[in-house]
Amino acid sequence: MELNRSPFARPFPELPHIDGVKLRVARAGYKTWERADLTFAELAEGTAIAGVFTKSACASSEVEMGREQVRQGRARALIVNAGNSNAFTGYRGREAVEQIVGQVADALGCEGEQVFVSSTGVIGVPLPKDKARSGVEAVLAAEPCGWEAAATAIGTTDTFTKGAGASAMVGETRVELAGFIKGSGMIAPDMATMLGYIFTDAAVEPAFLQAMLAKANAASFSCITVDGDTSTSDTVLLFATGKAGNAPLGSWDDAGADAFYAALLQVCRELAQLVVRDGEGAQKFIEIAVGGAADDASARRIGLCIANSPLVKTAIAGGDANWGRVVMAVGKAGEPADRDKLSIGFGGTWTAKDGQPLADYDEAPVARHLEGQDIRIDVDLGLGDGRAVVWTCDLTHGYISINADYRS
Amino acid sequence: MELNRSPFARPFPELPHIDGVKLRVARAGYKTWERADLTFAELAEGTAIAGVFTKSACASSEVEMGREQVRQGRARALIVNAGNSNAFTGYRGREAVEQIVGQVADALGCEGEQVFVSSTGVIGVPLPKDKARSGVEAVLAAEPCGWEAAATAIGTTDTFTKGAGASAMVGETRVELAGFIKGSGMIAPDMATMLGYIFTDAAVEPAFLQAMLAKANAASFSCITVDGDTSTSDTVLLFATGKAGNAPLGSWDDAGADAFYAALLQVCRELAQLVVRDGEGAQKFIEIAVGGAADDASARRIGLCIANSPLVKTAIAGGDANWGRVVMAVGKAGEPADRDKLSIGFGGTWTAKDGQPLADYDEAPVARHLEGQDIRIDVDLGLGDGRAVVWTCDLTHGYISINADYRS
Repeated sequence: MELNRSPFARPFPELPHIDGVKLRVARAGYKTWERADLTFAELAEGTAIAGVFTKSACASSEVEMGREQVRQGRARALIVNAGNSNAFTGYRGREAVEQIVGQVADALGCEGEQVFVSSTGVIGVPLPKDKARSGVEAVLAAEPCGWEAAATAIGTTDTFTKGAGASAMVGETRVELAGFIKGSGMIAPDMATMLGYIFTDAAVEPAFLQAMLAKANAASFSCITVDGDTSTSDTVLLFATGKAGNAPLGSWDDAGADAFYAALLQVCRELAQLVVRDGEGAQKFIEIAVGGAADDASARRIGLCIANSPLVKTAIAGGDANWGRVVMAVGKAGEPADRDKLSIGFGGTWTAKDGQPLADYDEAPVARHLEGQDIRIDVDLGLGDGRAVVWTCDLTHGYISINADYRS
Repeated sequence: MELNRSPFARPFPELPHIDGVKLRVARAGYKTWERADLTFAELAEGTAIAGVFTKSACASSEVEMGREQVRQGRARALIVNAGNSNAFTGYRGREAVEQIVGQVADALGCEGEQVFVSSTGVIGVPLPKDKARSGVEAVLAAEPCGWEAAATAIGTTDTFTKGAGASAMVGETRVELAGFIKGSGMIAPDMATMLGYIFTDAAVEPAFLQAMLAKANAASFSCITVDGDTSTSDTVLLFATGKAGNAPLGSWDDAGADAFYAALLQVCRELAQLVVRDGEGAQKFIEIAVGGAADDASARRIGLCIANSPLVKTAIAGGDANWGRVVMAVGKAGEPADRDKLSIGFGGTWTAKDGQPLADYDEAPVARHLEGQDIRIDVDLGLGDGRAVVWTCDLTHGYISINADYRS
């Protein structure tokens, strides 16, 4: 099936060079498509790694191994296979991953636990070992490539290639960040999302790198949803080569830690929002800001409950300021809420306040706002100080076409 | 918008006469449609009542009052307004309900707490008191009508009228049950569903009636989902007039209690499944049987997580035996699951066992099964004895058309 390009598709951005990262792609031929589908990032010795992974109980071997490997804190290589997720493939799937790890570790002369593997695509077909072996051979011999080529090679149903970058001053040293991500469907919150990779030349201790990634993840990848369906393979990895030469960051008290975190959060948010903007069938990008909740966690759960409601998502698709459906979604969230304190707005105009529709609100700006592509929903629970912002897309005929026709 | 009739639409069944129940309908004119939209059931003195209601934190005044009223155990009247849910309407909505209660209680010479009111339709528009008053006047003066007329009058986006009946022997006495229900979208589990009313001439103590309804609800209305969106107005009420003259049932040990419960469960299941069969856009009816779970509650949550997955629902719409999406849904349920013990089947054929696809399963019967209208998915977790069956429908272009075009 030909996928329609997302209306939010944008050119791939200029991303900074990250010293200590060398990218290559090759064609393993996991699917019949005529394009590179195997991505290899070679990382300088001493590169620190942090990772967040799906909480799925049916995660792939790649995820299971990654969860273990990330604990030792160092990485020399990343391999990403596109076209086959290798999930739900039992011991045969695990053997394929172990083969790749061994092959790359031999080539680089490093420990296997420093070689990270991800796979994305169809569930339930073991990754073919012969294709993986020849693909890895080819990629090890390939010429280095740029960010866009690597970011394109990890895609599957993505309709555009997604990357983001930022920089920060750590002490007197300027450090760079660059990341890329893939994902379009089977996107749900409370986890890392799909496959995302962020690289920086900053020097950061692994434990602190992990703490920063976990915090940024909670305010980015864990705040998006396309369809509420959580992948078995979601992974976000953050690599810090240390080549910028800054005094290594080890805690929030270190000079530059806040600046680095701000840059990291910016990259994470941009990447997360790009996934939503490429959500299957998306015609509108929706930001939902929840305030006045019992606490931040409650606000986020309410926001995601709204974001996952098919009735809210179809209302936005139809350009309908249907705050009744937002009320419904708040009501079903299982979180503290008081109907008579609830207020709801669209595009900055309150349409319902304190549990009642506002009879005299100005419909013109609301209608204009809903005709646009970037939709904002505000919800105030009137209970406490808890707040959160989540992002999603509308639910359209495009989603049905993509998913009722796509064959496993 | 013209709604397409569900492919599962069926003629309204013959339902038994229930002594002590008198039905009438009238036109209050809550919407512009040319049809009766106000239903009145007059109940004999001494009628016992049981009720289950939405757990929404944003429930309507009708639900709030009903939750209170049901505690005293007796009912003389039921009023159902169709076309306006009166939810999220603050004190003005509550005043409208109180007006109806007072008007009916005066006419019947009964306590207001014995008059039950439900409303269904648009959220956020206070029920107009003038229309309600003249509608109630008209219905009090109307000629009695049959089950089908009453069941039709409570409908909104329903594409067919839904009822079910049964009988049971309680001691030497034959007792009858008859019920009707409305609902098509905003249907989600863990609550009563939409508006359903069941009547019986059996004599049952209110507390035991409530216990039986709660138990039957857990295995019927709480096991269905159309879209995972829980209404603010969901209500199921069960009225027992006692006119059959059986020795009143007061506990599970009483002769005939089991037979009565079996008949009640049958009616609840039929009504619940009829709602799914009229699910918005439904082209296929899906039964999901989960076994081998840690316990029954866990099995039900896993079943509903599969039933609510848009990727599973679109796969079934497309006739695709996509067990990979079922694996995904099991994995995200947050319940105990072991990928390598998981088995999945369609229409009685296992396609994946013990965490791996069966390479040699016979695809022909699976493909034939998925071309049909009644789909069965089996999931075995291989962990324990927990089991549950849930019901849902597929997710189609029809759901998008209905909900992206329907205006509040």
